Amino acid sequence: MDYKKSIREVPDFPKKGILFYDITTLLSNADVFKNILDDMTTKAKSMNITKLAAIESRGFIFGAPMAERLGVPFIPLRKPGKLPYKTKRHEYTLEYGKDAIEIHEDAVGKGDRVLIVDDLLATGGTIEAAAALVKECGADVAGLMFVIELNFLHGRDKLKNYKIESLVRYDS
Amino acid sequence: MDYKKSIREVPDFPKKGILFYDITTLLSNADVFKNILDDMTTKAKSMNITKLAAIESRGFIFGAPMAERLGVPFIPLRKPGKLPYKTKRHEYTLEYGKDAIEIHEDAVGKGDRVLIVDDLLATGGTIEAAAALVKECGADVAGLMFVIELNFLHGRDKLKNYKIESLVRYDS
Repeated sequence: MDYKKSIREVPDFPKKGILFYDITTLLSNADVFKNILDDMTTKAKSMNITKLAAIESRGFIFGAPMAERLGVPFIPLRKPGKLPYKTKRHEYTLEYGKDAIEIHEDAVGKGDRVLIVDDLLATGGTIEAAAALVKECGADVAGLMFVIELNFLHGRDKLKNYKIESLVRYDS
Repeated sequence: MDYKKSIREVPDFPKKGILFYDITTLLSNADVFKNILDDMTTKAKSMNITKLAAIESRGFIFGAPMAERLGVPFIPLRKPGKLPYKTKRHEYTLEYGKDAIEIHEDAVGKGDRVLIVDDLLATGGTIEAAAALVKECGADVAGLMFVIELNFLHGRDKLKNYKIESLVRYDS
Protein backbone atom coordinates (compact mmCIF):
# COMPACT_ATOMS: atom_id res chain seq x y z
CA MET A 1 0.00 0.00 0.00
CA ASP A 2 1.36 3.43 -0.96
CA TYR A 3 1.01 5.23 2.36
CA LYS A 4 2.42 8.51 1.05
CA LYS A 5 -0.86 9.13 -0.80
CA SER A 6 -2.60 9.15 2.60
CA ILE A 7 -0.13 11.44 4.37
CA ARG A 8 -1.03 15.12 4.16
CA GLU A 9 1.82 17.58 3.59
CA VAL A 10 1.33 20.77 5.60
CA PRO A 11 3.75 23.61 4.79
CA ASP A 12 5.14 25.94 7.48
CA PHE A 13 4.26 23.79 10.51
CA PRO A 14 5.27 23.99 13.32
CA LYS A 15 7.24 26.96 11.94
CA LYS A 16 7.94 28.72 8.65
CA GLY A 17 9.97 26.67 6.20
CA ILE A 18 9.15 23.26 7.70
CA LEU A 19 7.07 20.80 5.66
CA PHE A 20 5.09 18.71 8.14
CA TYR A 21 3.93 15.19 7.32
CA ASP A 22 0.46 14.92 8.85
CA ILE A 23 -0.55 11.40 9.92
CA THR A 24 -4.13 12.31 10.85
CA THR A 25 -5.10 11.62 7.24
CA LEU A 26 -3.73 8.07 7.65
CA LEU A 27 -5.85 7.61 10.75
CA SER A 28 -9.01 8.94 9.13
CA ASN A 29 -8.98 6.09 6.60
CA ALA A 30 -9.86 2.92 8.51
CA ASP A 31 -8.44 0.57 5.85
CA VAL A 32 -5.12 2.42 5.70
CA PHE A 33 -4.79 2.53 9.49
CA LYS A 34 -5.53 -1.21 9.73
CA ASN A 35 -2.94 -1.91 7.02
CA ILE A 36 -0.30 0.12 8.84
CA LEU A 37 -0.95 -1.79 12.06
CA ASP A 38 -0.76 -5.07 10.12
CA ASP A 39 2.61 -4.07 8.63
CA MET A 40 4.09 -2.82 11.90
CA THR A 41 2.86 -5.85 13.84
CA THR A 42 4.34 -8.21 11.25
CA LYS A 43 7.73 -6.51 11.56
CA ALA A 44 7.50 -6.66 15.37
CA LYS A 45 6.75 -10.39 15.43
CA SER A 46 10.27 -11.29 14.35
CA MET A 47 11.79 -9.25 17.17
CA ASN A 48 10.81 -11.63 19.97
CA ILE A 49 9.73 -8.85 22.34
CA THR A 50 8.37 -9.08 25.87
CA LYS A 51 7.01 -5.51 26.11
CA LEU A 52 6.11 -2.62 23.82
CA ALA A 53 6.76 0.98 24.86
CA ALA A 54 5.48 4.03 22.96
CA ILE A 55 6.27 7.72 23.14
CA GLU A 56 3.63 10.31 24.07
CA SER A 57 1.41 11.17 22.38
CA ARG A 58 1.25 10.17 18.69
CA GLY A 59 3.29 7.06 19.45
CA PHE A 60 0.40 5.85 21.63
CA ILE A 61 -1.90 5.76 18.56
CA PHE A 62 0.22 3.07 16.91
CA GLY A 63 1.87 1.43 19.92
CA ALA A 64 -1.27 0.64 21.92
CA PRO A 65 -3.05 -1.38 19.21
CA MET A 66 0.23 -3.11 18.33
CA ALA A 67 0.75 -4.20 21.95
CA GLU A 68 -2.78 -5.54 22.12
CA ARG A 69 -2.35 -7.49 18.87
CA LEU A 70 1.01 -8.88 20.01
CA GLY A 71 -0.30 -9.78 23.47
CA VAL A 72 2.45 -7.92 25.33
CA PRO A 73 2.30 -5.23 28.03
CA PHE A 74 1.97 -1.64 26.81
CA ILE A 75 4.35 0.84 28.47
CA PRO A 76 3.77 4.60 28.06
CA LEU A 77 6.85 6.83 27.89
CA ARG A 78 5.80 10.33 28.86
CA LYS A 79 6.88 13.93 29.30
CA PRO A 80 8.06 14.87 32.80
CA GLY A 81 5.43 15.04 35.52
CA LYS A 82 2.76 13.04 33.68
CA LEU A 83 3.30 9.55 35.10
CA PRO A 84 1.78 9.27 38.59
CA TYR A 85 3.95 6.58 40.21
CA LYS A 86 7.71 6.51 40.87
CA THR A 87 9.60 7.30 37.68
CA LYS A 88 13.03 7.19 36.09
CA ARG A 89 13.96 10.09 33.83
CA HIS A 90 16.41 10.65 30.97
CA GLU A 91 17.26 14.21 29.96
CA TYR A 92 18.35 15.16 26.47
CA THR A 93 19.41 18.25 24.60
CA LEU A 94 17.26 19.92 21.96
CA GLU A 95 18.27 22.55 19.40
CA TYR A 96 17.33 25.15 22.00
CA GLY A 97 17.32 23.96 25.60
CA LYS A 98 16.61 20.60 27.25
CA ASP A 99 13.80 18.12 27.49
CA ALA A 100 13.30 14.82 29.31
CA ILE A 101 11.34 11.60 29.06
CA GLU A 102 10.04 9.42 31.90
CA ILE A 103 9.06 5.81 32.55
CA HIS A 104 7.55 4.16 35.61
CA GLU A 105 10.43 2.55 37.48
CA ASP A 106 8.67 -0.84 37.61
CA ALA A 107 7.55 -0.83 33.96
CA VAL A 108 10.48 -2.70 32.39
CA GLY A 109 13.53 -4.48 33.81
CA LYS A 110 16.13 -7.18 33.51
CA GLY A 111 15.10 -9.93 31.06
CA ASP A 112 12.74 -7.68 29.08
CA ARG A 113 13.15 -7.15 25.35
CA VAL A 114 11.41 -3.87 24.58
CA LEU A 115 10.23 -2.51 21.23
CA ILE A 116 9.88 1.29 21.27
CA VAL A 117 7.31 2.81 18.89
CA ASP A 118 6.81 6.39 17.73
CA ASP A 119 5.12 7.97 14.74
CA LEU A 120 8.16 9.80 13.37
CA LEU A 121 11.95 9.49 13.24
CA ALA A 122 13.32 12.99 12.65
CA THR A 123 16.64 13.99 14.25
CA GLY A 124 16.28 11.10 16.70
CA GLY A 125 16.82 12.97 19.96
CA THR A 126 13.69 11.75 21.70
CA ILE A 127 13.97 8.11 20.63
CA GLU A 128 17.64 8.04 21.59
CA ALA A 129 16.68 9.23 25.08
CA ALA A 130 13.84 6.72 25.26
CA ALA A 131 16.15 3.84 24.34
CA ALA A 132 18.75 4.97 26.88
CA LEU A 133 16.03 5.13 29.56
CA VAL A 134 14.85 1.59 28.82
CA LYS A 135 18.43 0.35 29.10
CA GLU A 136 18.95 2.26 32.37
CA CYS A 137 16.05 0.19 33.73
CA GLY A 138 18.05 -2.99 32.95
CA ALA A 139 16.03 -4.05 29.90
CA ASP A 140 17.22 -4.70 26.32
CA VAL A 141 15.99 -2.61 23.41
CA ALA A 142 14.75 -5.11 20.80
CA GLY A 143 14.08 -2.43 18.21
CA LEU A 144 12.82 1.04 17.34
CA MET A 145 9.84 1.36 14.99
CA PHE A 146 8.33 4.36 13.22
CA VAL A 147 5.60 5.05 10.70
CA ILE A 148 7.61 7.82 9.01
CA GLU A 149 11.37 8.36 8.73
CA LEU A 150 12.86 11.63 7.50
CA ASN A 151 16.06 10.36 5.86
CA PHE A 152 17.42 13.87 5.34
CA LEU A 153 17.63 14.49 9.09
CA HIS A 154 19.90 11.45 9.58
CA GLY A 155 18.30 10.25 12.82
CA ARG A 156 19.68 6.76 12.13
CA ASP A 157 23.24 8.03 12.52
CA LYS A 158 22.86 8.40 16.28
CA LEU A 159 20.98 5.09 16.63
CA LYS A 160 23.56 2.73 15.13
CA ASN A 161 23.34 0.24 18.00
CA TYR A 162 19.64 -0.42 17.43
CA LYS A 163 17.51 -2.31 14.94
CA ILE A 164 15.36 0.33 13.22
CA GLU A 165 12.20 -0.18 11.15
CA SER A 166 10.10 2.45 9.40
CA LEU A 167 7.24 2.15 6.90
CA VAL A 168 7.52 5.39 4.93
CA ARG A 169 10.69 7.32 4.14
CA TYR A 170 11.10 10.84 2.79
CA ASP A 171 14.28 12.16 1.22
CA SER A 172 13.27 15.81 1.51
CA MET B 1 -13.33 -9.01 35.09
CA ASP B 2 -12.66 -6.94 38.22
CA TYR B 3 -10.64 -4.10 36.73
CA LYS B 4 -10.19 -2.31 40.04
CA LYS B 5 -7.66 -4.96 41.08
CA SER B 6 -5.49 -3.84 38.14
CA ILE B 7 -5.76 -0.09 38.76
CA ARG B 8 -3.01 1.30 40.97
CA GLU B 9 -4.01 3.90 43.54
CA VAL B 10 -1.37 6.62 43.87
CA PRO B 11 -1.87 9.05 46.77
CA ASP B 12 -1.03 12.76 46.48
CA PHE B 13 -0.87 12.95 42.67
CA PRO B 14 -0.92 15.36 40.91
CA LYS B 15 -1.11 17.26 44.21
CA LYS B 16 -1.42 16.61 47.92
CA GLY B 17 -4.75 15.12 48.99
CA ILE B 18 -5.68 13.72 45.57
CA LEU B 19 -5.88 9.92 45.14
CA PHE B 20 -4.94 9.18 41.53
CA TYR B 21 -6.20 6.07 39.73
CA ASP B 22 -3.25 4.90 37.62
CA ILE B 23 -4.21 3.04 34.44
CA THR B 24 -0.64 2.08 33.48
CA THR B 25 -1.08 -1.06 35.57
CA LEU B 26 -4.08 -1.98 33.40
CA LEU B 27 -1.96 -1.54 30.29
CA SER B 28 0.91 -3.58 31.62
CA ASN B 29 -1.29 -6.68 31.81
CA ALA B 30 -1.95 -7.76 28.21
CA ASP B 31 -5.01 -9.88 29.11
CA VAL B 32 -6.61 -7.07 31.10
CA PHE B 33 -5.96 -4.51 28.36
CA LYS B 34 -7.45 -6.83 25.73
CA ASN B 35 -10.50 -7.42 27.92
CA ILE B 36 -11.04 -3.68 28.38
CA LEU B 37 -10.89 -3.13 24.64
CA ASP B 38 -13.34 -6.01 24.14
CA ASP B 39 -15.78 -4.48 26.64
CA MET B 40 -15.49 -0.94 25.25
CA THR B 41 -15.81 -2.11 21.65
CA THR B 42 -18.91 -4.16 22.49
CA LYS B 43 -20.55 -1.11 24.05
CA ALA B 44 -19.61 1.01 21.03
CA LYS B 45 -21.11 -1.43 18.53
CA SER B 46 -24.66 -0.60 19.59
CA MET B 47 -24.07 3.14 19.04
CA ASN B 48 -24.02 2.98 15.24
CA ILE B 49 -21.04 5.35 14.91
CA THR B 50 -19.31 6.61 11.78
CA LYS B 51 -16.16 7.94 13.49
CA LEU B 52 -14.31 7.62 16.78
CA ALA B 53 -12.56 10.60 18.37
CA ALA B 54 -10.24 10.40 21.39
CA ILE B 55 -8.74 12.99 23.69
CA GLU B 56 -4.97 13.49 23.98
CA SER B 57 -3.09 11.69 25.26
CA ARG B 58 -4.37 8.77 27.42
CA GLY B 59 -7.58 8.68 25.41
CA PHE B 60 -5.49 7.70 22.37
CA ILE B 61 -4.40 4.47 24.11
CA PHE B 62 -7.98 3.18 24.20
CA GLY B 63 -9.54 5.05 21.28
CA ALA B 64 -7.04 4.07 18.58
CA PRO B 65 -7.38 0.29 19.00
CA MET B 66 -11.16 0.65 19.34
CA ALA B 67 -11.39 2.57 16.04
CA GLU B 68 -9.31 -0.06 14.30
CA ARG B 69 -11.48 -2.88 15.67
CA LEU B 70 -14.68 -1.06 14.69
CA GLY B 71 -13.36 -0.18 11.23
CA VAL B 72 -14.08 3.54 11.57
CA PRO B 73 -11.82 6.60 11.15
CA PHE B 74 -9.80 7.65 14.20
CA ILE B 75 -9.91 11.38 14.99
CA PRO B 76 -7.43 12.87 17.49
CA LEU B 77 -8.65 15.74 19.68
CA ARG B 78 -5.61 17.67 20.84
CA LYS B 79 -4.33 20.51 22.96
CA PRO B 80 -3.94 23.86 21.15
CA GLY B 81 -1.15 24.13 18.60
CA LYS B 82 -0.57 20.39 18.17
CA LEU B 83 -2.66 19.63 15.08
CA PRO B 84 -0.83 20.77 11.93
CA TYR B 85 -3.72 21.51 9.54
CA LYS B 86 -6.60 24.02 9.84
CA THR B 87 -8.37 23.56 13.16
CA LYS B 88 -11.50 24.47 15.07
CA ARG B 89 -11.10 25.20 18.77
CA HIS B 90 -13.36 25.16 21.82
CA GLU B 91 -12.24 26.97 24.97
CA TYR B 92 -13.34 25.96 28.43
CA THR B 93 -12.87 27.11 31.99
CA LEU B 94 -10.81 25.19 34.53
CA GLU B 95 -10.72 25.62 38.30
CA TYR B 96 -7.92 28.13 37.74
CA GLY B 97 -7.74 29.67 34.28
CA LYS B 98 -8.72 28.44 30.81
CA ASP B 99 -7.85 25.63 28.47
CA ALA B 100 -8.90 24.66 24.94
CA ILE B 101 -9.24 21.62 22.71
CA GLU B 102 -8.80 21.43 18.94
CA ILE B 103 -9.93 19.29 16.01
CA HIS B 104 -8.97 19.40 12.33
CA GLU B 105 -11.76 21.29 10.59
CA ASP B 106 -12.26 18.51 8.02
CA ALA B 107 -12.18 15.64 10.55
CA VAL B 108 -15.92 15.30 11.25
CA GLY B 109 -19.01 16.92 9.76
CA LYS B 110 -22.69 16.73 8.90
CA GLY B 111 -23.96 13.14 8.84
CA ASP B 112 -21.26 11.82 11.19
CA ARG B 113 -22.13 10.06 14.42
CA VAL B 114 -19.05 10.40 16.64
CA LEU B 115 -18.11 8.43 19.74
CA ILE B 116 -15.66 10.34 21.96
CA VAL B 117 -13.29 8.27 24.13
CA ASP B 118 -11.14 9.25 27.09
CA ASP B 119 -9.58 7.33 29.95
CA LEU B 120 -11.25 9.21 32.78
CA LEU B 121 -14.46 11.11 33.54
CA ALA B 122 -13.70 13.45 36.45
CA THR B 123 -15.40 16.87 36.59
CA GLY B 124 -16.20 16.58 32.89
CA GLY B 125 -14.84 19.92 31.67
CA THR B 126 -12.65 18.53 28.90
CA ILE B 127 -15.18 16.03 27.55
CA GLU B 128 -17.93 18.67 27.60
CA ALA B 129 -15.70 20.92 25.47
CA ALA B 130 -14.83 18.02 23.15
CA ALA B 131 -18.51 17.19 22.61
CA ALA B 132 -19.35 20.84 21.96
CA LEU B 133 -16.51 21.03 19.43
CA VAL B 134 -17.75 17.95 17.55
CA LYS B 135 -21.23 19.48 17.38
CA GLU B 136 -19.83 22.81 16.19
CA CYS B 137 -18.39 20.87 13.23
CA GLY B 138 -21.94 19.78 12.32
CA ALA B 139 -21.65 16.17 13.54
CA ASP B 140 -23.75 14.31 16.10
CA VAL B 141 -22.25 12.96 19.32
CA ALA B 142 -23.25 9.29 19.48
CA GLY B 143 -21.79 8.80 22.93
CA LEU B 144 -19.02 9.46 25.44
CA MET B 145 -17.01 6.52 26.74
CA PHE B 146 -14.50 6.22 29.59
CA VAL B 147 -12.51 3.52 31.32
CA ILE B 148 -12.92 5.14 34.75
CA GLU B 149 -15.65 7.39 36.13
CA LEU B 150 -15.25 9.28 39.40
CA ASN B 151 -18.89 9.40 40.58
CA PHE B 152 -18.10 11.77 43.44
CA LEU B 153 -17.06 14.54 41.02
CA HIS B 154 -20.48 14.44 39.30
CA GLY B 155 -19.15 14.87 35.74
CA ARG B 156 -22.38 13.31 34.44
CA ASP B 157 -24.41 16.24 35.71
CA LYS B 158 -23.04 18.55 33.02
CA LEU B 159 -23.35 15.88 30.29
CA LYS B 160 -27.08 15.12 30.57
CA ASN B 161 -27.67 15.38 26.82
CA TYR B 162 -25.24 12.58 26.00
CA LYS B 163 -25.16 8.80 26.26
CA ILE B 164 -22.35 7.98 28.71
CA GLU B 165 -20.60 4.64 29.24
CA SER B 166 -17.84 3.82 31.71
CA LEU B 167 -16.30 0.52 32.79
CA VAL B 168 -15.12 1.24 36.32
CA ARG B 169 -16.74 3.62 38.82
CA TYR B 170 -15.37 4.96 42.08
CA ASP B 171 -17.50 6.52 44.81
CA SER B 172 -14.57 8.13 46.61
